[in-house]
Amino acid sequence: MKERVVINDVGPRDGLQNQPRVLTPEQRLQLIRALLDAGVAHIEVGSFVSPKAVPAMAGTDQVVAGLPAGGATYSALVPNRKGYQLAKDAGVSIIELVVASTDTMNLKNINTSTEQAMANVAEIAELARADGVRAMCYIATAWECPFEGLVPLDTSMALMRQMFDAGIEEVVIADTIGAADPAGVQRLTQEAAAEFGAANLSCHFHDTRGMGVANVSAALQSGIRKFDGSIGGLGGCPFAPGATGNVATEDVVLMLDQMGFETGIDLEGLVAAVELAIELTNNCEGGNSIRWLRRQIEKGTLKKTA
Amino acid sequence: MKERVVINDVGPRDGLQNQPRVLTPEQRLQLIRALLDAGVAHIEVGSFVSPKAVPAMAGTDQVVAGLPAGGATYSALVPNRKGYQLAKDAGVSIIELVVASTDTMNLKNINTSTEQAMANVAEIAELARADGVRAMCYIATAWECPFEGLVPLDTSMALMRQMFDAGIEEVVIADTIGAADPAGVQRLTQEAAAEFGAANLSCHFHDTRGMGVANVSAALQSGIRKFDGSIGGLGGCPFAPGATGNVATEDVVLMLDQMGFETGIDLEGLVAAVELAIELTNNCEGGNSIRWLRRQIEKGTLKKTA
Repeated sequence: MKERVVINDVGPRDGLQNQPRVLTPEQRLQLIRALLDAGVAHIEVGSFVSPKAVPAMAGTDQVVAGLPAGGATYSALVPNRKGYQLAKDAGVSIIELVVASTDTMNLKNINTSTEQAMANVAEIAELARADGVRAMCYIATAWECPFEGLVPLDTSMALMRQMFDAGIEEVVIADTIGAADPAGVQRLTQEAAAEFGAANLSCHFHDTRGMGVANVSAALQSGIRKFDGSIGGLGGCPFAPGATGNVATEDVVLMLDQMGFETGIDLEGLVAAVELAIELTNNCEGGNSIRWLRRQIEKGTLKKTA
Repeated sequence: MKERVVINDVGPRDGLQNQPRVLTPEQRLQLIRALLDAGVAHIEVGSFVSPKAVPAMAGTDQVVAGLPAGGATYSALVPNRKGYQLAKDAGVSIIELVVASTDTMNLKNINTSTEQAMANVAEIAELARADGVRAMCYIATAWECPFEGLVPLDTSMALMRQMFDAGIEEVVIADTIGAADPAGVQRLTQEAAAEFGAANLSCHFHDTRGMGVANVSAALQSGIRKFDGSIGGLGGCPFAPGATGNVATEDVVLMLDQMGFETGIDLEGLVAAVELAIELTNNCEGGNSIRWLRRQIEKGTLKKTA
């Protein structure tokens, strides 16, 4: 019996939000359907943010309306109370909130102090509970902030504690700018898993410095069993300089497969989704393993994994 | 006091041997000098193989003759007794021998059985001892063979035992085709470190499936403190299908720096060597971190590390 690891593909939100080419809601649904076809069962489908601030996420309500019903779990990012209302009205059942680890990052990202951001999260979490909506919360720049530098472990731990105290059910520890290394990941995830329980945590990595899958591997050792990935490595954060390149879902799934974990995801289907991401965005090269994966598919030597 | 990790750059041999463009000995020396300028203190400078089989390595004696004297440690690969004689005559002080983990790989690579390959290694190691030449030995395809598939841990352990018994001073555990994952790396390196001592071991990874630095990180946890890297990720093995892409030295050094290890290598100098590798070979993109590294250099925000 293989141990299960859950992959949440954030390509349709985190991956697309910063693309030079803005996709239509139907194109975004096309990408989501390709992910579903590959067996990806958790997908971040969009965000309810100002279309002026993030034009690529305009029409997320249409995306949500077009989502295939079925076994998959869909989530959407909401930056504030207004976004929450829009998400709820659209029928979203899982919302993602975000608080960064530093005041500067919160000011640049959502124009509030950390304290105010946490208060907003607590307020929205309470609304969500009353509405039967599940609330997750990201701790952004959990290891390093592009403005304030290295984040002390205690700072991130204290913020996570506040999130759980506010009724958040799952916290995603996010290396928003791809600055973490395996040693730092292991320190924070070990401590967080010990205090909050690994089952209530997830991790989000970027491959900016080439350490994305190494960080996934480090977090696995702390018992983390849920990870964000972005199809083809699409992504970045418009407000965080240098934050290009989410860790590619195909790289993470390939490693998990080999390590003997069960993801329920078919790599051949995942590569088809990568090719679609490349075609739709014209701004994606695929993950570090994409050339090897393509060659295996050509030769018919890629093991069926789902 | 930081803990030291030794980086052996194999770009001038493993990285260049399979390039479509054959470099002159002077160009190869240019690359070696760029590595020395960056503070790389261990370099695999070439191999003494048949120039018909590997034209890119013709003139390794000229490369050796042109090596700057000084603090650096240079090694060269020798496939057989004839190669050993040529290396010795050229004045090489460290030779690298190779035995693959499977008969098929040894047949394809050096046209002998594994048993015969080990016997040759023992013979050459004895000659080297008498000549005052230090002998290292690679166990190629230590985790997986492109022809025979997964290699049982006991097979690799038994071969390493024979290498040490034959008087080899250092064994390099090599994932020649980039097929290993962090879990497998940890299993084999832990067992090898326990039996042979981590100080007598080194690891060699490829990034073919995007797990190169994750595997370095896994081996670090077993106490391994010496790693091969190839500048810019140059490389592959002409006899091992799909073996493209050694793990890039700059990716490994960046991770080690961040994790608090001392390598003695300056990343800015390393990037200069990457740019030279790109220019000389016209067949190199740099490691996964190269875009981030270049941006830091442009902005002047790369920390001085050496």
